[in-house]
Amino acid sequence: MKYIITLFISLSFLFKASPQNPEEVVKSIFDNALTDNTAEEHLLYLCKNTKGRIPGSQQALHAVRYTMNALIEAGADTVWLQEVPVPHWERGNELAVLKSRLGALELTISALGLSVGTGPGGIDAKLIEVHDFKQLTEIGTGRIKDKIVFFNRPVDNTIINTFSGYAGAVDQRVSGASEAAKFGAMAVIVRSPTQAMHDFVHTGVVRYKEDIPRIPAVCLSPNDANLLSRWLKEDKEAVLHLVSDCKNYPDTISFNVIGEITGYEKPGEYITVGGHLDAWDISEGAHDDGGGCVQSIETIRLFHELEVKPRRSIRAVMFMNEEMTSTGGQVYADEAGKRGEIHYAALESDRGVMSPLGFGFGNADDERLEELFQLAKYFEPYGIRYFARGGGGSDISPLRRFNTLQIGYIPDSQRYFWFHHSANDTFEQVNIREMQMGSAAIASLIYLIDLYDL
Amino acid sequence: MKYIITLFISLSFLFKASPQNPEEVVKSIFDNALTDNTAEEHLLYLCKNTKGRIPGSQQALHAVRYTMNALIEAGADTVWLQEVPVPHWERGNELAVLKSRLGALELTISALGLSVGTGPGGIDAKLIEVHDFKQLTEIGTGRIKDKIVFFNRPVDNTIINTFSGYAGAVDQRVSGASEAAKFGAMAVIVRSPTQAMHDFVHTGVVRYKEDIPRIPAVCLSPNDANLLSRWLKEDKEAVLHLVSDCKNYPDTISFNVIGEITGYEKPGEYITVGGHLDAWDISEGAHDDGGGCVQSIETIRLFHELEVKPRRSIRAVMFMNEEMTSTGGQVYADEAGKRGEIHYAALESDRGVMSPLGFGFGNADDERLEELFQLAKYFEPYGIRYFARGGGGSDISPLRRFNTLQIGYIPDSQRYFWFHHSANDTFEQVNIREMQMGSAAIASLIYLIDLYDL
Repeated sequence: MKYIITLFISLSFLFKASPQNPEEVVKSIFDNALTDNTAEEHLLYLCKNTKGRIPGSQQALHAVRYTMNALIEAGADTVWLQEVPVPHWERGNELAVLKSRLGALELTISALGLSVGTGPGGIDAKLIEVHDFKQLTEIGTGRIKDKIVFFNRPVDNTIINTFSGYAGAVDQRVSGASEAAKFGAMAVIVRSPTQAMHDFVHTGVVRYKEDIPRIPAVCLSPNDANLLSRWLKEDKEAVLHLVSDCKNYPDTISFNVIGEITGYEKPGEYITVGGHLDAWDISEGAHDDGGGCVQSIETIRLFHELEVKPRRSIRAVMFMNEEMTSTGGQVYADEAGKRGEIHYAALESDRGVMSPLGFGFGNADDERLEELFQLAKYFEPYGIRYFARGGGGSDISPLRRFNTLQIGYIPDSQRYFWFHHSANDTFEQVNIREMQMGSAAIASLIYLIDLYDL
Repeated sequence: MKYIITLFISLSFLFKASPQNPEEVVKSIFDNALTDNTAEEHLLYLCKNTKGRIPGSQQALHAVRYTMNALIEAGADTVWLQEVPVPHWERGNELAVLKSRLGALELTISALGLSVGTGPGGIDAKLIEVHDFKQLTEIGTGRIKDKIVFFNRPVDNTIINTFSGYAGAVDQRVSGASEAAKFGAMAVIVRSPTQAMHDFVHTGVVRYKEDIPRIPAVCLSPNDANLLSRWLKEDKEAVLHLVSDCKNYPDTISFNVIGEITGYEKPGEYITVGGHLDAWDISEGAHDDGGGCVQSIETIRLFHELEVKPRRSIRAVMFMNEEMTSTGGQVYADEAGKRGEIHYAALESDRGVMSPLGFGFGNADDERLEELFQLAKYFEPYGIRYFARGGGGSDISPLRRFNTLQIGYIPDSQRYFWFHHSANDTFEQVNIREMQMGSAAIASLIYLIDLYDL
């Protein structure tokens, strides 16, 4: 009798270790992801204990240490850090008060990352509202010089793809300062690029052009943008008192965090799955992109816990400094080049962690795409139906030089810009089941690509 | 010059009134829905000003008056009320304290709708934990008599369709009281049927079988269900002090609210679009189902404002009393029968107002289904891809007797049971853009079905 029991246990162990077919492996991945709470604990920790983890911050280093341990606990064979040069920028006191003949109006603002400051005393200037760079040029130096330019073109909410809508408005935030400075503006105040109408300000990076004076740049909330526009219609001579006492310091050092499960057949070929660990200082970085990091750690945990042995080496990478100057992705690709690594495929999750729609594939020829699209059948039972051409992410795009397949995780992003780059991007805004549906989809896709040489 | 300007204005008016093709009409519907805030205002009002609108309540009558006006403002030709007999049940004081040798443990509970009460003094009894009715039968009268049965089978989170997961656990809530009373139980306390692990209690209706004593039935939060189970393992003799001073009163009267745009070609043929106006007393009824009502009102508003003339009559119906005894849907179908109305199709939105995946179709033969599935091409630009067999809703199902096509609006429901029947179902949990994507999808589908005789 004892013998039979032992045999039974051994067989069930074997069965657990070797599910009979890919459908079963995928099901075991979904089953585990949807019933395990490790990911929830990781996200909660990152949101509440490393809040404000911009690239050069102590919070970012805290997140580096935390995710290094998380990758070890998840079962990575090897975990290491990769040194990344990062900017060091700090937000200061912020205040914006419109002094008008209607009275005083305080506005909710947030300095843009890497912006120069106004100094502690701030500046006072009249405003001019414009909607695009063409209009700015038409107005010209005469009326712009010594004013604060108020960029107020909203996102077009009729554009169904919310990232496309965002892309149609974000130029004001990224390039508005230099465009306005060409005509002698003193500062810019930019409507937050979002489909939402609310009181949250959405920050993000400003990029200054060379040989143009650097002027302070801040965002204001969509509600306040409407309010400011109405007040300016009543009083064009109103003066804005703007304080944004942020500062740029010399570059410093932070780290990419990498955890690897070594492949049993082709250990020198790599499949990368990543998100970015840095997040805007005013947010918890839940959807952007703590969730993407947690999903990458989950890929390691799921492979390890379910004893799914990859043929190639799988690497989960927490990229540093996606938000400011994207040096994490560059360092990762540079190091790969130096070591002569073969990067077979790379996936990035950086569009929020809402329910998965599917995946977009870039840097692949038609034949490879056709084969990848065949994988959709494995995802049909999970309601994941979108397999399309075009995709990737900013951290993995430097791997294109190695002809690496680029994969973008595509969730349902209709509500993403309610959170993006704002204080509204909190743990509470993530539905854990939606995030874990994504973790399971990502781990399953990587398993299948590796299994079938796709 | 004046003549030319006038001509130009007239032509653009004509163009607006008569878009050139169905694709343009659908686009105009999405464009309007995604940029208009009427629906947001309606939902906010229903949530904050008619909170607790169970069938026999004053709040429900307030919601009746509000939506009647909303339908008039939306541009319905005719708006009327339909008298519906409804139960009148009122929640009372509630308290559940486990008195154990470990100390006292207070639990978060909520009486089930239509449950009998314990009286103000409550009851005190030992507990027995069971997971299903089979186990209940095995345990039998000897150990169940005079106890409180604690049903603690959780929803299986590995089931991808969250409604299927819910269906696998909700029998404990609906039928647990009568099943336990067969064996002499004094009351039942039921784990909330949800995929979520949180402190919210999810209520819902209890159905008593005839000729079995009616015993009090309450739900408790998922977190407290786990806690109670652990405490009972430590002390099987612990006594629960349970107060649920709810009461059933004689039936009363409420109303379905109906708004119609009369068809220009077949005014005697009807297409119904509806949700249910009643909601659980502990919730704001945002996702369940204020949102579905608002989407139905939006269908009228969109047809009216965009001057889309339907061939058949379109009716938006706010059904009363879906949650308790579903009399609203029965009255609506009975009245239709008396008047000899032809009910061509009916759509219900009662699965939450998250992003649309698509539609499910019921009560149609293969040929009609095949034609309906052809409509998917109109929804592809909006990322709406799910057109499947099987669907409807409890309020429109009585129309099956007229051979009416049944259509269920299918949103992404992964997070739905975080809200369903609980105090967590608030306005703040609805993303307005996701809801409006659904409104546009619903209005577009009805337009296309009417246009193409599908």
